[in-house]
Amino acid sequence: MEAKLITLITDFGYEDPYVGIMKGVIVGINPNARIIDLSHGIPPQDIAAGALVLRYSVPFFPQGTIHVAVVDPGVGTERRPLLIESEGCFFIGPDNGILSLALEGKKPGLMIDLSNETYHLKPTSATFHGRDIFAPIAGYLSLGIPPQDLGASVKGFARLPWPEVIKTGRALQGEVVYIDRFGNLITNVHGYELRDLQPDTLIVSLGPLTIQGLGASYTRGEERGYVALINSWGLLEISLFKGSAHLRCGAKKGDKVYIEGREIQGETQ
Amino acid sequence: MEAKLITLITDFGYEDPYVGIMKGVIVGINPNARIIDLSHGIPPQDIAAGALVLRYSVPFFPQGTIHVAVVDPGVGTERRPLLIESEGCFFIGPDNGILSLALEGKKPGLMIDLSNETYHLKPTSATFHGRDIFAPIAGYLSLGIPPQDLGASVKGFARLPWPEVIKTGRALQGEVVYIDRFGNLITNVHGYELRDLQPDTLIVSLGPLTIQGLGASYTRGEERGYVALINSWGLLEISLFKGSAHLRCGAKKGDKVYIEGREIQGETQ
Amino acid sequence: MEAKLITLITDFGYEDPYVGIMKGVIVGINPNARIIDLSHGIPPQDIAAGALVLRYSVPFFPQGTIHVAVVDPGVGTERRPLLIESEGCFFIGPDNGILSLALEGKKPGLMIDLSNETYHLKPTSATFHGRDIFAPIAGYLSLGIPPQDLGASVKGFARLPWPEVIKTGRALQGEVVYIDRFGNLITNVHGYELRDLQPDTLIVSLGPLTIQGLGASYTRGEERGYVALINSWGLLEISLFKGSAHLRCGAKKGDKVYIEGREIQGETQ
Repeated sequence: MEAKLITLITDFGYEDPYVGIMKGVIVGINPNARIIDLSHGIPPQDIAAGALVLRYSVPFFPQGTIHVAVVDPGVGTERRPLLIESEGCFFIGPDNGILSLALEGKKPGLMIDLSNETYHLKPTSATFHGRDIFAPIAGYLSLGIPPQDLGASVKGFARLPWPEVIKTGRALQGEVVYIDRFGNLITNVHGYELRDLQPDTLIVSLGPLTIQGLGASYTRGEERGYVALINSWGLLEISLFKGSAHLRCGAKKGDKVYIEGREIQGETQ
Repeated sequence: MEAKLITLITDFGYEDPYVGIMKGVIVGINPNARIIDLSHGIPPQDIAAGALVLRYSVPFFPQGTIHVAVVDPGVGTERRPLLIESEGCFFIGPDNGILSLALEGKKPGLMIDLSNETYHLKPTSATFHGRDIFAPIAGYLSLGIPPQDLGASVKGFARLPWPEVIKTGRALQGEVVYIDRFGNLITNVHGYELRDLQPDTLIVSLGPLTIQGLGASYTRGEERGYVALINSWGLLEISLFKGSAHLRCGAKKGDKVYIEGREIQGETQ
Repeated sequence: MEAKLITLITDFGYEDPYVGIMKGVIVGINPNARIIDLSHGIPPQDIAAGALVLRYSVPFFPQGTIHVAVVDPGVGTERRPLLIESEGCFFIGPDNGILSLALEGKKPGLMIDLSNETYHLKPTSATFHGRDIFAPIAGYLSLGIPPQDLGASVKGFARLPWPEVIKTGRALQGEVVYIDRFGNLITNVHGYELRDLQPDTLIVSLGPLTIQGLGASYTRGEERGYVALINSWGLLEISLFKGSAHLRCGAKKGDKVYIEGREIQGETQ
């Protein structure tokens, strides 16, 4: 039988043994579980960053994968521990919005409040549900325990606000939502939102920075410094060739990005 | 057959390939060994931090796990490479104290000086026993080679001093022993050492900082800023809600913590 | 059947999910592939550091291992994605020199331009070939797809310049090529290049720093501060006992190192 795949996202970092301890709990329950780290470098308590990382990682994992995401400043309070099944994958984490971006536009199936303490680690702490609830739940689920046994069915889950792209005629306003290790400034603007505009005529503005035209790869920046392109997540990104756009221009999360361009003249003309 | 579990703790960091090389050696010997990273972010040469991480991780791993801990400033000198069996688990590392906290209060069984060079990598360097001794030993042990074959039985092992909690009537003095990624200040005071005191009457002092009462979860700090609680390792911890107690108050490892409170009036009265 | 081993080297870091996404793609293709991280902390775009890490890790992995190295500032341009077979191992990465140091002195076998899009992820981005080309190729290769099916056979590959050691009589000039987490200054001088000189008479100079004699282990520095030794990769290294030679003396990559010593009087005299 194929090993069940479990992915982990946390803000636990790489210095402390918290992630390794979660893995010990998982393999203690299911020695054949296969675990893949997505990121443990989510900034402490940054639920939105965890939600974004989850959203753009999920499409690259096979059906049946169990995704565990633990950024959980409210651990030990009344916020529910949740399991959501959607389109053949499972999402486990605190009900604080961290699962919500991955579920946008998807049909959520079963939603379970993980209240069945039979499947929690004992004693159950009020400070580390990653170890005491989410890891064992992932372990038992990967063993084939039905989701319904893990708690009570619920309706609805906490949703994070996702900044909307504002369109005014041929102009769009988005914002920087994620900055990666390379200093790439990733925005909330999807490539398909620009499909009616001629790529070469696009003007992308961010603070004092103006970029003309959409590049096809980072090397476009070789001549020009900055490049705007649709990145591997399908989002508009501003990059600096062999450098950090973030460090060079000082932009930060939440900064507004403006895009305009000439419309593509379609067949209807 | 179930894959044997091997955990790794080192101060090798995540930039260099040293940890990956150890894993290459292990799976070259036992392709079915399963390896879990506990931490490779132990500060360079900080044996005590490695020992503490090992101690508080071990309880969450199944019987038969092989724990390898390599923080080894004395590599290549006469300090022995050691294997200790205790209560069904195996501990492998340099005999410099790194294994000792995990063994406190436990019955050590076999202790083996890993002197049988048949099971070392050749040539054996004087600078990287993680690769040349500890990794291959873990690999062979996970294959089922009996510990006795790996070297000569010895008695005793190096012990780290563990700072004792000093009790004077209803007052205790402990100290900060570990600071995690969240800036939580973890002390050497076990929760059970406070069991005779009323939680609400506790006064926890650290430098100019005074916290009244023991919280149940981090969100207690939502109203009050700092919170003192018994953490997921069972230790008294001082935290700042959605912030770093370490950065905010500047406390560091070794700083003294004072606790006092009113005694619980038992049934004997 | 034994799981095929795949190693990964990237400059993707540990904050973002890029590495985890590559793993999702690999195990989506071959659920039994075994993946070991060598380093994801290569400095952004530092091809030479990636090449060096690959070179000194390969010897510790078993026959048949598939090594994937992605430091790829030219992603999306005409630089070829490459697979090279050599002495029973496979090397996959962009043809920008990152594979070249590992192949020095080895007989390269098959070299394949990974042009067969059947084995690429669709749609194939121009910005993340780690996910869209290198990961799926590694997955399919680990499944047993013959290398010849993955693209067209080519001759030659890009080579990084490797700084040569200059010998003048009994004097050698090398340079610092890598600095590790411990601040060890690793040079391009191989231990065998010093075999004709008496270890005790060696004078190693680096800027204002002069070290007399070759140490056998780091603890040599216990008396003397700095120590020069042949490290676990077989290279001359300058270290500071329980400290960082890099931080203490300020040396950096590319700094010249001078070595001289008295010749060993052989049997021929």
